Amino acid sequence: MNDCAAIEAALKVFGRAWAAAVLRAMLSGAERFSEIRREVTGITDAVLSARLRELCEAGLAERSVEPGPPVVVRYRLTDAGRGTEPVLAALAEFGRWHRP
Amino acid sequence: MNDCAAIEAALKVFGRAWAAAVLRAMLSGAERFSEIRREVTGITDAVLSARLRELCEAGLAERSVEPGPPVVVRYRLTDAGRGTEPVLAALAEFGRWHRP
Repeated sequence: MNDCAAIEAALKVFGRAWAAAVLRAMLSGAERFSEIRREVTGITDAVLSARLRELCEAGLAERSVEPGPPVVVRYRLTDAGRGTEPVLAALAEFGRWHRP
Repeated sequence: MNDCAAIEAALKVFGRAWAAAVLRAMLSGAERFSEIRREVTGITDAVLSARLRELCEAGLAERSVEPGPPVVVRYRLTDAGRGTEPVLAALAEFGRWHRP
């Protein structure tokens, strides 16, 4: 995989609306849908559901269900998902430094 | 500027189609339109023009015209533009490592 293909693959993850904010919330330890939503001000339930589903499909997060009662659903980052941290840090650093 | 806003600002640059590939070509030293186009396999003239215009508007590149003849137009990254290198490196590293 050359650099350009690798960058395109990475941007399929980070380029979606709210994806970076959701990842940041999960990197900070939020696991429940309601916790993540609280961390990501302004996101709708539908968008958060879509992003979480995509992160799971991409192997960046795992969904677990504790049968309860009450049923508890958790989303946890995989090792690959935690690998997003340096990318988000680089993006944040650039965005802070570069104010158009 | 908080992290989320900074990340959103950065993704306005990196999230556009072909933007990362154009930046990489320019970081490698390509300056002329035709040089950059040659480095970025598959890009159309219209898309390359649009990306270069946006990079200039964002303060990441500068357009200079040598009056000639022949007229020579060059696009050079500014200091801010060169600041994209660590972000592209982080994206490439993540993309290589994470193959969904």
